[in-house]
Amino acid sequence: MSGEQVQESFKNLHDLKLVFSNRAALAAMDPDREVYRVRWWAPVQPATEGGLLWGVTVLQPGRVGDEYFMTHGHLHANRSRAEFYGTVSGNGMLIQMSADRKTWGEVMTPGSLHYVRGENAHRIANTGDAPLVVWACWPSDAGYDYTPIAERGFAARLVQRDGKPVFIEGD
Amino acid sequence: MSGEQVQESFKNLHDLKLVFSNRAALAAMDPDREVYRVRWWAPVQPATEGGLLWGVTVLQPGRVGDEYFMTHGHLHANRSRAEFYGTVSGNGMLIQMSADRKTWGEVMTPGSLHYVRGENAHRIANTGDAPLVVWACWPSDAGYDYTPIAERGFAARLVQRDGKPVFIEGD
Repeated sequence: MSGEQVQESFKNLHDLKLVFSNRAALAAMDPDREVYRVRWWAPVQPATEGGLLWGVTVLQPGRVGDEYFMTHGHLHANRSRAEFYGTVSGNGMLIQMSADRKTWGEVMTPGSLHYVRGENAHRIANTGDAPLVVWACWPSDAGYDYTPIAERGFAARLVQRDGKPVFIEGD
Repeated sequence: MSGEQVQESFKNLHDLKLVFSNRAALAAMDPDREVYRVRWWAPVQPATEGGLLWGVTVLQPGRVGDEYFMTHGHLHANRSRAEFYGTVSGNGMLIQMSADRKTWGEVMTPGSLHYVRGENAHRIANTGDAPLVVWACWPSDAGYDYTPIAERGFAARLVQRDGKPVFIEGD
């Protein structure tokens, strides 16, 4: 995505050091290695009711130990605000967790379309060998709440077993 | 777009007989000829605040006289509710009209992304030789208001002149 009003953020392994479970594996990796970048377009001011925002995430392939590269994950500050995700290229998993910490994934393949209900925490993981490119569309007054995920994480982790993605419980 | 919950609507030339300016040209065409179809996914009930809907429109190429095939066009009942459009394939024009009837177009090409502010009437026209495939994402409580367009139309029409799309004023 490109354009005059497009903004970009960038996360490397150092930025995500509290996200992955295997600290020993992480310590052996380059902390400057890129995990993902997000470009987004905000046609309206944040908190505008009724407006929409658009973002494109490029999530690199890789694992920390057996855990797939993934985004930080968050909730919307306004828990009624939903979000659409779509897969442009690559293969991944849209990981969601409900308020009662039930955690599940939807397989992302090119062209797949996914709906995240407003009350669900969400993150994406790259389960393939190529960059995972996904777009997202969400209300401009959704807001962001990173605290619950920073404090407790998701209730399950997505790891590679026999070459395939599998959820395992807890930390 | 496909899936269990996907709904579809269909419009032929007969359904759009009040939309095109050249009634003589229209009368000479097959009224059953398809102009467009929309498939949409409503993961939540209409009028749900904070939810989102997704639709894909396939607009056929063609003209009635010199006027390009286009959709009916509408406003959102809730004038604060915005909408994103994206172009999958084909070439077209996203036509918008503000509350003071200023009318303009944004060229749609594969990959182009467009933001429609909540207060603007909007329709799409196919200016190419192949089907125009576009998706749209809008809030589930946006609603639809077809009355202003049915009564007065847009303030400008998109016609072909020397093989290119040009806006002309009024009817």
